[in-house]
Amino acid sequence: MSPRITFYHAPNSRSGGTFSLLEELGVDYDLHLVNLKSGEQRQSAYRAINPMGKVPAIRHGEALITEQPAVFLYLADLYPEAGLAPAIDDPLRGPYLRWMVYYGSCFEPAIVDRSQQRDPAPPSTSPYGTWDDVLNTLALQLAKGPYLLGERFTAVDVLWGGALHWTTMFHLVPETPEIRAYIDRVITRPAMQRAAAKDAEFAAQQAA
Amino acid sequence: MSPRITFYHAPNSRSGGTFSLLEELGVDYDLHLVNLKSGEQRQSAYRAINPMGKVPAIRHGEALITEQPAVFLYLADLYPEAGLAPAIDDPLRGPYLRWMVYYGSCFEPAIVDRSQQRDPAPPSTSPYGTWDDVLNTLALQLAKGPYLLGERFTAVDVLWGGALHWTTMFHLVPETPEIRAYIDRVITRPAMQRAAAKDAEFAAQQAA
Repeated sequence: MSPRITFYHAPNSRSGGTFSLLEELGVDYDLHLVNLKSGEQRQSAYRAINPMGKVPAIRHGEALITEQPAVFLYLADLYPEAGLAPAIDDPLRGPYLRWMVYYGSCFEPAIVDRSQQRDPAPPSTSPYGTWDDVLNTLALQLAKGPYLLGERFTAVDVLWGGALHWTTMFHLVPETPEIRAYIDRVITRPAMQRAAAKDAEFAAQQAA
Repeated sequence: MSPRITFYHAPNSRSGGTFSLLEELGVDYDLHLVNLKSGEQRQSAYRAINPMGKVPAIRHGEALITEQPAVFLYLADLYPEAGLAPAIDDPLRGPYLRWMVYYGSCFEPAIVDRSQQRDPAPPSTSPYGTWDDVLNTLALQLAKGPYLLGERFTAVDVLWGGALHWTTMFHLVPETPEIRAYIDRVITRPAMQRAAAKDAEFAAQQAA
């Protein structure tokens, strides 16, 4: 029998993506709520889980997995019956990996620079080129719709639907009709709604 | 029969990692050399392959895969007989995904800031925390050695061995004895040496 997953999560944080994914997968796991306000992520107990002091992280037996796209890839492959990961021999597997990695390698660095009002590094150095490159590449892909890989809803949509939700809310990404429609298509799913409601409860408990 | 892989590569660039991986995998493929100096990566033919205008990219049938960690994950899983990717049910699979994604999500953004002499974004925003977080997390993992995942050499070592080679050469990463020994362990492998020699030839041809 496979050991149980432990999921290290902070309410109202980037690990909300993983929280939603676990709800979509419909699996049972142990939840460890990390209190970011008390600085738990910088204490040695948590540093032993993720020396970067970030959520999400999961422990599965002896294995520790950090970095949201890696956690997504791991969990979606671990529960193939949920159908959220194209299998290794599926023609969608490559684009699936591409869009998972693109999130952390291009979109997040671009969002960080934008939120700090910094220019990107010069073209030969910047991992994402320019902000327009990032937005245009995303728009081209979303135009294929209704989901990021076309007809099939996968774990990349859980990641991107949630990420575009908060980045448009903070006005970091422009809310075009296509982006808005995509966000709504993802966040109105029953599992996504359940995850959002539970996360709000956890946030209220931590604030109390 | 699986269609042939086409690999879009620029000599002396970041896509050298993928070039080395293909040599380690020992597989046959079609090579498309991209001329960065002539700006080929910004022309529409290449933008149709990767709208970000970056290498590496691969085409496999209808699938286009970009972003180096995604390309690595894809190719290493596609050729399981080479043994460079822990299988989905292997206890090393999670750490393997983690270190592949960590490269693009944490290490590269940290290297970019460092090369530009910029401070990281504030802790709640920075994807990599601080430069010390990145180096310490890497050092902790390398201490388990001899390879990044322990005893087993995998595709993550092709990625990290090559990346640490050029980042120490440019004095972006300190050349500690542990890091130096790790780089040497990786780059002295026959396939890595063959890849480096071939890439140097391609670079000379493009310069001629």
